[in-house]
Amino acid sequence: MKQLNIGLFGFGCVGQGLYFALQHSTGFRANIKKIVVKHPHKKRIVDSDLIAYDKYEILDNPEIDVVVELIDNAEEAFEIVKMAMERGKHVVTANKKMLAMNLEELISLQKKNQLSLLYEASACGSIPIIRTLEEYFDNEDLLQLYGIFNGTTNYILTKTIDEGLDYQTALKGAQQEGFAESDPTNDVEGFDPKYKAVILCLHAFGLIIHPDKVLNLGISSLSENDIQFASEKSLKIKLLPVIRKIDDHQITAYVIPHFINNNNNLFKVDREFNGVIVEGEFSGQQFFQGKGAGSHPTGSAVLSDISALSYDYKYSFKKFEQNGHKKFTQKVLLDIYLRLNSKSELEQIIFEEIHSQYYSQDYNYVIGKISLEQLFRSQAYLREQKLFCAVIE
Amino acid sequence: MKQLNIGLFGFGCVGQGLYFALQHSTGFRANIKKIVVKHPHKKRIVDSDLIAYDKYEILDNPEIDVVVELIDNAEEAFEIVKMAMERGKHVVTANKKMLAMNLEELISLQKKNQLSLLYEASACGSIPIIRTLEEYFDNEDLLQLYGIFNGTTNYILTKTIDEGLDYQTALKGAQQEGFAESDPTNDVEGFDPKYKAVILCLHAFGLIIHPDKVLNLGISSLSENDIQFASEKSLKIKLLPVIRKIDDHQITAYVIPHFINNNNNLFKVDREFNGVIVEGEFSGQQFFQGKGAGSHPTGSAVLSDISALSYDYKYSFKKFEQNGHKKFTQKVLLDIYLRLNSKSELEQIIFEEIHSQYYSQDYNYVIGKISLEQLFRSQAYLREQKLFCAVIE
Repeated sequence: MKQLNIGLFGFGCVGQGLYFALQHSTGFRANIKKIVVKHPHKKRIVDSDLIAYDKYEILDNPEIDVVVELIDNAEEAFEIVKMAMERGKHVVTANKKMLAMNLEELISLQKKNQLSLLYEASACGSIPIIRTLEEYFDNEDLLQLYGIFNGTTNYILTKTIDEGLDYQTALKGAQQEGFAESDPTNDVEGFDPKYKAVILCLHAFGLIIHPDKVLNLGISSLSENDIQFASEKSLKIKLLPVIRKIDDHQITAYVIPHFINNNNNLFKVDREFNGVIVEGEFSGQQFFQGKGAGSHPTGSAVLSDISALSYDYKYSFKKFEQNGHKKFTQKVLLDIYLRLNSKSELEQIIFEEIHSQYYSQDYNYVIGKISLEQLFRSQAYLREQKLFCAVIE
Repeated sequence: MKQLNIGLFGFGCVGQGLYFALQHSTGFRANIKKIVVKHPHKKRIVDSDLIAYDKYEILDNPEIDVVVELIDNAEEAFEIVKMAMERGKHVVTANKKMLAMNLEELISLQKKNQLSLLYEASACGSIPIIRTLEEYFDNEDLLQLYGIFNGTTNYILTKTIDEGLDYQTALKGAQQEGFAESDPTNDVEGFDPKYKAVILCLHAFGLIIHPDKVLNLGISSLSENDIQFASEKSLKIKLLPVIRKIDDHQITAYVIPHFINNNNNLFKVDREFNGVIVEGEFSGQQFFQGKGAGSHPTGSAVLSDISALSYDYKYSFKKFEQNGHKKFTQKVLLDIYLRLNSKSELEQIIFEEIHSQYYSQDYNYVIGKISLEQLFRSQAYLREQKLFCAVIE
């Protein structure tokens, strides 16, 4: 086992979780040599000698062999990761947006420089999903992978259903308790789970899809009527990223709220917990549940990557190497519940089949089949009109 | 990636599942060179050239570099595994009894010969639990690991609760549907889940416990009164192996039926499914669910090990190396429900505390605290008297 010297970028929630987990690790003592942070005036829980403000104090330090990148900004993070790898340093990161936007380039950087780039903490917190896909489902055709990848929205949705709160009240509560950021767009509009889905799609199906091509419908248009609809039918609302094999050459992917029933394993995955369902051709349906967010669970995922580095572990992207001309498609029909302001909106959003419709003075909805292509084209309209759209099982 | 030549021992349910999974693998084509079976007169689904009856046709074939051992008999399996490793062949096995009884010797054989011995399929079918413990929780202190490790008993217990069947009827049904063997002792008395617990204890806590030291209470004494007790309280009965950290130097382990409620993730793990809960100090509670038995799920677990071999993967037993003088203890108190034939039986089985007692013409039980040591000493008596004993949460 190698002794690793770490340069850490960012010392927020996850960075501090990592620091704590490293100090309490049963196994090895990797050494944090330097922590580069942005704000000089914040109080820090570590020795001030460790802290620096110039990225080159890590990047140009020949003693440091591993860069752990835990900052928010995706563009800055990408610069750091590239510079680190060009200088021969291994990288561990949790930045899902940076990864999802640059997967292709990151894979070639890793290959070219013969380095490891590990990012278990980027998806589903403490659930070891990337490692499991890479190492365990590497030779089996997967049928689908879906789940709850975003703790913030799941926390909000749990509050609306369990406590009967409306969306705005539940969001405010989540912000006060530290489960949602002051600008919650990234979570509540489904961008965060989309980035995670794009990363998992690479490891599960060997396909890189640019995030801009993947539909993400969020939960910000959720109304009390939608919540009541779910409650009356004993359903729960969960924001689910779905990646599914259509045939040997086509994969679809989307992020849409779902009404799910008690038979679904995700039904009881509440609050900040994440859950992932992986269905394999031979292994059947696997279900994984764990804490999706928080300082310690995410810090321990980062630690696990650092530990893997000490054994020279690399992702081998086997599914990507074997891809076999797989393509992304949106030519699939989904069973959709759509809450409308008025019937005329159906001229903009064309259903292939309508199964039921409900109209009243203050609440209208249509249930039927609609193509993912159509939903993708209508996403701006859906947001503008604040129409709530969900898959209904 | 290496091209592997496989010698396969046993061609029953799992062997055929592996054969099928290999043929349909997306990734590599490992080559089955020879299959050694016992019964010359059975019809086989493969070319008769592949079949042999003499173990040396595999063991002494220099072309074969991997032995996959999938026979029933633990003693014979151990002989084969030893001989294979002495001849420089890597081994993949699913034989939990053979493993649990010989862990210490198997680890040193592996080290001495610098070979891989992999056995993901030995515990919890398609749930990649050993690999996850080895690679992902390798640097984190675990608090406990428990779950449903035996599909047969879970299938029987599901039938008793869901369909109101008595134990004997449910067992017969399970035998007819191929979920239980004609002699079900190994499953229903809790030996099978005990062997799995012993294996997982090594990877989760770094401690080897001889199976004979671990209490296994089964479900064969389950009566209609016990089932009714559970149903009235909306509880389910699950046979759970538990491994738990008591303090930095003490680990306890046992297999006992449990009454569990709706808040436990295992509540909805029914029929032949398995579920595992891993609680880590930092990562919190993880829950894994998947098919615990069957030709394809287990075959795919074996395939995953073969695939890992092609990348020179070995278990590194990190927790075992870091063990730090951990010891097995039975000095723990458990909350126990004990159904009695008569009050006098309490002279044999001493409760530390009694919380409630119920006596009637045809049904008596006591609930209270009892030490694991006491239960271990009383296990023969419990079996003879057919007393049903369960942990109650």
